[in-house]
Formats: sequence, structure tokens, C-alpha cells
Amino acid sequence: MNKPANFAHLEVGYDVPALPGMDEADIQTPCLILDLDALERNIRKLGDYARAHNMRHRAHGKMHKSVDVLKLQMELGGAVGVCCQKVSEAEVFARAGIKDILVTNEVRDPAKIDRLARLPKYGASVIVCVDDVDNIADLSAAARKHGTELGVFVEIDCGAGRCGVKTGAEVVDIARAAVAAPHLAFRGLQAYQGAMQHLDRYEDRKARLDIAIAQVKEAVAALKAEGLEPEIVSGGGTGSYYFESNSGVYNELQCGSYAFMDGDYGRILDKDGKRIDKGEWENALFILTSVMSHAKPHLAVVDAGLKAQSVDSGLPFVYGRDDVKYVKCSDEHGVVEDPHGVLRINEKLRLVTGHCDPTCNVHDWYVGVRNGKVETLWPVSARGKAF
Amino acid sequence: MNKPANFAHLEVGYDVPALPGMDEADIQTPCLILDLDALERNIRKLGDYARAHNMRHRAHGKMHKSVDVLKLQMELGGAVGVCCQKVSEAEVFARAGIKDILVTNEVRDPAKIDRLARLPKYGASVIVCVDDVDNIADLSAAARKHGTELGVFVEIDCGAGRCGVKTGAEVVDIARAAVAAPHLAFRGLQAYQGAMQHLDRYEDRKARLDIAIAQVKEAVAALKAEGLEPEIVSGGGTGSYYFESNSGVYNELQCGSYAFMDGDYGRILDKDGKRIDKGEWENALFILTSVMSHAKPHLAVVDAGLKAQSVDSGLPFVYGRDDVKYVKCSDEHGVVEDPHGVLRINEKLRLVTGHCDPTCNVHDWYVGVRNGKVETLWPVSARGKAF
Repeated sequence: MNKPANFAHLEVGYDVPALPGMDEADIQTPCLILDLDALERNIRKLGDYARAHNMRHRAHGKMHKSVDVLKLQMELGGAVGVCCQKVSEAEVFARAGIKDILVTNEVRDPAKIDRLARLPKYGASVIVCVDDVDNIADLSAAARKHGTELGVFVEIDCGAGRCGVKTGAEVVDIARAAVAAPHLAFRGLQAYQGAMQHLDRYEDRKARLDIAIAQVKEAVAALKAEGLEPEIVSGGGTGSYYFESNSGVYNELQCGSYAFMDGDYGRILDKDGKRIDKGEWENALFILTSVMSHAKPHLAVVDAGLKAQSVDSGLPFVYGRDDVKYVKCSDEHGVVEDPHGVLRINEKLRLVTGHCDPTCNVHDWYVGVRNGKVETLWPVSARGKAF
Repeated sequence: MNKPANFAHLEVGYDVPALPGMDEADIQTPCLILDLDALERNIRKLGDYARAHNMRHRAHGKMHKSVDVLKLQMELGGAVGVCCQKVSEAEVFARAGIKDILVTNEVRDPAKIDRLARLPKYGASVIVCVDDVDNIADLSAAARKHGTELGVFVEIDCGAGRCGVKTGAEVVDIARAAVAAPHLAFRGLQAYQGAMQHLDRYEDRKARLDIAIAQVKEAVAALKAEGLEPEIVSGGGTGSYYFESNSGVYNELQCGSYAFMDGDYGRILDKDGKRIDKGEWENALFILTSVMSHAKPHLAVVDAGLKAQSVDSGLPFVYGRDDVKYVKCSDEHGVVEDPHGVLRINEKLRLVTGHCDPTCNVHDWYVGVRNGKVETLWPVSARGKAF
């Protein structure tokens, strides 16, 4: 097989699980594959939704950690830019030429603040979250040192129980400090309700989001009373974006998992009581795995275990197969019940991971497939970018 | 700070979490740190035990995936070589000059068999596990193609419920086929009882191992009756090595986690009812994490979440601190209960991961510390080597 020029130095098996042009059957496992047709449909669908609802969509790059997937979200889905959780992720996207970057997280370590403040030199607008007025002086000093400007979102804890302040008064305090600080610009609010995204029932998710929306409205009113109207109010995930879009107060979405889908999101129900992976979104991400032992007639062992996925949200399921079931996971093995003994050695299965974000983070490559062929190979550009 | 020459191209924060010579306080988080004193004591202790019991110790490289840690196990602990789970891991160790390599796993994919059969060209003795007589011809053909020899261990399922055959008759069938096959050598038995390693009570572990030992003895007797005496009988983990060492049938140990310790092993009890991380072994591996938000007085948020660890065996605990508790984990955050509000922004905590193997696999570096200083920086050489 002739290799495309930019992969000329890579060997299948040693360096990469596959190369463009290969048959899907020859992919080395375990690895991540992307169904490019499904991925593109998911991306277009959210883009259409956001456009129809006058919402900006800032794609969450922490999910895929991939410059290539992000560019597809911008090209096909109209995403305005990226959000991510770490300065090191933001660096990857800035170096790749992305011009609108939001770090949906607090940055407190002096060395990280210094790196953050350099990023606008790549020509990017960079926004960071703040939940403590003491952070403002450090951010301002670093931006001044580098001759840059950093945008500030005040983060509201609207139910996630993690970072963020609770009250309108706290929001106003931080916003006022950001406005007053040289080299900082108060840009808006970060208000992502993470805890409700995975509740099964639509009505339960709505009830939680109604509380969040009320809290955000209170904060916006408090800011307006001080003449500090936020330009952007950002939030919304795959389990909630329709609530934020119809809230009258949010104007930016941060969906991530919609593009790939996973087991934990897939099982939640839309407003008609249907699983969201059975209509609203398609499974586009799979762990491709091979049967590598079948010494017991009713148990097969596959080559994808804990080092090919995160099981924090449960075990994966075998896509498109009701006759076999992934029932146990150890470091390098998955045990698959095969009651009828139908699986064969080296047979490949597609697994849908319980949780896409940390699963993508253990792999170096996405293998993009279409019509049984490997079409593209994308690096997980920000894999391991945690510090 | 002057950088050691071999790190001259690496920048702290951008590329690596720390460099040798730095103060521990300046390490960028989250990252893995190794307490080198504790690590060396653990390694020496198992080496002394194995020597005193006339057991070979083949260190399990799938745990740390590090050439540097393995070399320490060979130098200080007398390890005879390495075992690992994947051909791609074996390649890393072979290229690093390790001469005795066991793949404690079946290899069935033709491309992987081909790569495996090349490895003896690095000057290494290479052994692979087999649990299906159909595998023998493929291994033999690949070794013949490359002009090499592969050793074969027959894998016995002695309780793990995964790969491996059950009966002496099946063992004999595979061993006989290996003896007859050109370019293969029947070397012995793989008999690792993984399922019992994490049972809390010593007596419960012993009861399971007694069954495994009986099964291995039956297999060895069946082999001897055919004139096929195994040279090596290999198995044993951190929760069981004393049973194998006193079994009269095993002659090789495969311990891995003893060197680093983790939460899931640490809580099991020795024969006096004491946690094994309170005497038998020391915690040498930690996830170093920093407080990055404390907007609620009794809850701190740290920067190590699901992308800095695997939580398949439970949440990490905060080492040496009874006053704070890691209670929740999301992609990039850990929520720490801080009832007395003692934690400060940027304060560092040492976390003991629930399960060291998959946690090491999400990091690129080990930061070796001693006396408050960074002494060394080791790559996780085989990180991500899954396919």
C-alpha cells in the first residue's frame, strides 16, 4: 500500500493502528474509530439547531482533544471556536490557529497563569473563568507582563457543586474587579450545569435547568444593575442544550459529547421518552476490539480493557449485537459472554464506551472510517494535556 | 535553573511536569510522582524475598510501563527480566535491551504474531502464552519466516475466568504441539490467579490459591507423565506471592504493584490482619494535585480528575491527611471535602490512586522525588501501547 505523504514515517502496528486507504478489517486493535458519516451528521445537526435558535456554539474540545474534529465542527457545524479545561489544551488549539478559545476552568498556579497570558500572542481571543476575586490581580499582572489581554468569565455554580460562585453579589464583585483590572476584559458568565446532564428523564433534567436558569437570570440582573451587562452567557451540554437555547438568557452553547455519543449520554431520554442515541444523535465513536481468546465455549476475551477506555460510567456495550455482551473488564482484557459460541478468534467488535471524554484521552489516534475503508487518521492532539 | 543535557529540549509546563533539580513545590500538576526512597525499599524487599525462597522474579512491566523502573527492579531487586501484556510493550522493552521477555497473554492477530516473531532479533528470549492449539501453527510459521525461536507457555485458567485452559489434558495437548512445531520451544506454564489478589482476608486469598496450586500440580503431573516437564511455572502477584513461593510447584513470580502500591491492593490484609500498605509495602506512587478552586468554604476542588487517573477500583485517597477527603471525580476535577476549611489555593496534595496500572497509562512522565527535590524524570515508556 502506498502511504499518504504525511504518514510516510509511520508503520501500522508499531506507530499507528491504521493508515488511510486500508480496509477496515486490517485495523490493529484496540483503537478508536470514528464513523465519519455519523460524525458529520451529528455535527451538522447541532450546527443547524444552534443557527435556528440564534445561539453561538463553542465546541467543547476537552471531549475529543482533537484539532481535526474541532475544525470539522467549525466548518460543517458553524462552531465559533473552542472551549477546553486546561491551559495545555488551549495551547494546542492556539498553536493550530484557533482564534476563539475559552478555558472553562479556573487557573491559579502562577506558572499556568503565565502560559495562559502568552496565548493571545497566537492571535487568539482567550477567555478564562474566575470564581475568586483574589485571582484577578494575578491574571492582570501576567497579561500586563506579556502585553496581552485576557477575557474573564465569572463562573457560576448552578448545580454542579464544583467550581463557581453562587450568588449575584459574588458575581458582581468579581466582574467589577475584572473591569477595573488592567489587561483584563469582563466578557460574560460561565454557567454549566454538569450534574444534571446524565439524568435519564427529560423532565428531571428540565427541573434542574429551570433552577440554574433562574440563578443565571438573577446574576445577569445584578450585573445590569451595576452597568455590567455580560456580552456572553455560556453553558449547555448534550443533555440540556435545548433548555439553554430557549432560556432567553444564555446565548452560547458548549456541547461536546453530541458529536461522538457514548453509553452514559446515549441512555438518557428525549422529551418523547426515546434514548437519545436512537434518533437525536448517532454513535460515531467506537472502540474497535478483537477476540483474542475463546478457550471457554461461552466466554470470549477481547483485547480492550481498562487501558483502552475509562469505565467510570460503566462498562461499554457491543454495538449492533444483542447476542453477545461485554461483562467484565481488567487491565488489558474484556470478557464477553457469548452464550451461543458465535464469536471467532480475531473477529472484531465495535464497543460503545460508557464515557467518551476520558476514553479518548487514553488513545493517540482516531481512525476515521467510511464504507469499510480507512479514510483518515487524526491525532488526539491534546491527549494527556493535563498539567 | 540549568537543565540536565538530556532534557535540554523540554520545557516545564509545556512538555514535562518538572525537571531534575527543581524543588518539589514547583512541580506542575496533576502528574505522577515517585517517592524514590520508598520505591527502592519496595524493590529491594521483594528481591530479598524471592532470593531467600529460590524464586525467579520476572517484574510485571504492564504495571509501570517504564524501562527505568524495570532496570531498577533488575539492578536492586534481582529481577530476571520482564513480563508484559502486549506485543507493543514487549517491543519497547526489547528495544531498550531487556533480554528476557514474557508476553503473559495470547497473541492471535497475524500482524501482531509477525511483530512478536521479530523480537528475538533484538537478542531477547521471548516467550508467549497459548491457550488454543490452533495458535501453534501460526506462531511457528512466523518464527520460521523470521529465522527466530519463540518460547511457549501454556496458560492455565486457575481462577481468573479469562484466558487459559482448565484441564491437564488440554495443557498436554498444547505443550505437545509446541514441542513438535519448528521454531517453537515449550518452556513452561503461565498460571496467574488474578481474581483473588484483591480479596481482603489472607485466609480467603489462601483458599483460592490452594485450589489454583492443586490445578497447576495436576497439570505438571500430566506433563511429566508425557515427558514434557515444564522448565518454568510462572505466576503470583502482590496479594499472593508467598503462596506461590511456598507451593513447591511455582518457580517464578510476576509481581508488579508491590513496587508502587495503590488503594485497591493497599487495603488487603496480611496474615496478621494488617493492611499491606502499613508495613509490608510502602506507597511510592502518588498523583500530585493542586487546589484550584475553593469558592465554597467546605469544599475544595483539585486539578486531578478522570484524565489523571482510572477510578475503576474506587476514588483515590489523600495520603497522610485525615482532615480532608477526595469524594467526587469528574473529567478534570476532584472535589475534596474540607470541613475545617484548611486547604489553600495552590496547596498540593498527594493522592493514592485506587489502581496503579491504568492510572500510570494516562501519564507521560514519572517525576522521581527525594528529600523535597526532583531527582529524576522517567518517561512512561510504553504508555498507550495497547494495539
